[in-house]
Amino acid sequence: MSDNKIVIASDHAGYLLKKQLSDYLKSLNYDVLDLGVDTDAVSTDYPLKAQDLAYILKDDPKARGILICGTGIGMSIAINRYPFIRGALAYDKQTALLARQHNNANVLCLGGRTTNFDTAKELTDIFLTTPFDGGRHEKRVLELGEMK
Amino acid sequence: MSDNKIVIASDHAGYLLKKQLSDYLKSLNYDVLDLGVDTDAVSTDYPLKAQDLAYILKDDPKARGILICGTGIGMSIAINRYPFIRGALAYDKQTALLARQHNNANVLCLGGRTTNFDTAKELTDIFLTTPFDGGRHEKRVLELGEMK
Repeated sequence: MSDNKIVIASDHAGYLLKKQLSDYLKSLNYDVLDLGVDTDAVSTDYPLKAQDLAYILKDDPKARGILICGTGIGMSIAINRYPFIRGALAYDKQTALLARQHNNANVLCLGGRTTNFDTAKELTDIFLTTPFDGGRHEKRVLELGEMK
Repeated sequence: MSDNKIVIASDHAGYLLKKQLSDYLKSLNYDVLDLGVDTDAVSTDYPLKAQDLAYILKDDPKARGILICGTGIGMSIAINRYPFIRGALAYDKQTALLARQHNNANVLCLGGRTTNFDTAKELTDIFLTTPFDGGRHEKRVLELGEMK
């Protein structure tokens, strides 16, 4: 069931947090598709992992994504190249909440070197359970899909 | 001189911080082009302000940008639609530094409701004065410009 599907990927700097979050999400019975990386011993370019995740979400628009690099910044640049993605770098509860309520984020970007596992779990929970507010934010979110 | 040019824009939620930062940058003798908004009394869609800034930077690649909405998230989604932009949501000194050193960010995204003026000044100073590390980050930054 796509509503339950979480696609997760990282570069080497995000590997450990990705593994921890992936195990956590599986324990909550989410359908987790882990696109790697599978080691932190080999450097991997974050744009390539973001691209892999974007292609999956293009075919499965109800799935949600989590992307992790060192700070989350590289991933947030890369994933927002795609007009069907709203990728939010969240770093505390307020930004995770507003990313859903105002921006209808479908990808959460996290920093493996900036956000510890306990915080990442909290932000992920908020990201996965907070509804979009709609209303005045609806038009802006539509504009995000149509930028030229 | 384009190297000295800073283009700045916000929605209503970022208006106050934009005004403060614009005045601060002028006091440092930067060539500041302020694209508005000019009031916080009228709601303005952040994607439209990001688009305005992107068009300026497309014609003037040496200019740098600052975009402010409530959290910086909406602006970071919108501005990274453009392949010649690397827009970084920075929220502390470490993320501002790494956004330049690793991601060669040319646009700084800030949250008018999440980052106070003193912090915003610090992050802006780091953004404007920190060189790109190049090296292993060069290939990744090139990939960000060529994502399909």
